[in-house]
Amino acid sequence: MIEQEVTIFDRIIAGETPCHRVYEDDQVLAFLDIGPLSDGHTLLIPKERARYLHELSDPAAAALGRVLPRLCRAVLAVTGATAYNVIQNNGSAAHQAVFYVHFHIIPKFPNRGLGISWSAGSLDSARATELTRKMRAEMGVG
Amino acid sequence: MIEQEVTIFDRIIAGETPCHRVYEDDQVLAFLDIGPLSDGHTLLIPKERARYLHELSDPAAAALGRVLPRLCRAVLAVTGATAYNVIQNNGSAAHQAVFYVHFHIIPKFPNRGLGISWSAGSLDSARATELTRKMRAEMGVG
Repeated sequence: MIEQEVTIFDRIIAGETPCHRVYEDDQVLAFLDIGPLSDGHTLLIPKERARYLHELSDPAAAALGRVLPRLCRAVLAVTGATAYNVIQNNGSAAHQAVFYVHFHIIPKFPNRGLGISWSAGSLDSARATELTRKMRAEMGVG
Repeated sequence: MIEQEVTIFDRIIAGETPCHRVYEDDQVLAFLDIGPLSDGHTLLIPKERARYLHELSDPAAAALGRVLPRLCRAVLAVTGATAYNVIQNNGSAAHQAVFYVHFHIIPKFPNRGLGISWSAGSLDSARATELTRKMRAEMGVG
């Protein structure tokens, strides 16, 4: 088992590294990204330590979900943005840079914000049936 | 006030349009995206109707958050992916195509998955202080 390294987000939670703190409660912390893709780019992290979203407990993940709408409203109100992306990356190949679970809230403005390339395929029927069966079994609803 | 149009996701929840259903409970529904960016691309939606994440109630958003880790584990287990993106788009400018809140879980494989362009700026100190003050006021922690 690989031990989870101490990240900048651990140090922010511990108060060892300063941040622009937007919101905090017993379970989550929100603060401004120091390398923003656009004005108001905000990060939301759980206080429960985990590298990836799939490692997080249900209650910690629920706490993140619960605060997201309020946090998005605050970002929109203050920046004047009307469009935005919420993104959470897992693994270097998926653009994760800090190995501590975090959600980005990124306002979208002309030429600023998250750049997305969306190369959609089509769902193969036989593969879809197989995926659904196996995923339902994994979810305990087989 | 613009009335929320009936989307394909409303029809899926109502059982009028079929889907490859991966998980369902009282508050959420997960199913395979019919235009996948990669094998196992899955959608998670609330049963509470809302166009955008900032319009969603706290309990509905918490329910989405709560199921995400389990759903991600199922996607990884079945596809063999080790990296993935979770993304939720709001507004046409931010790549939203169906105007009903939805989270994408998108496995990342070489040359398949979400394409991201990340053009980070740096956080201006005076602007950061202003944003933080105003967002804290919006969050009721001013």
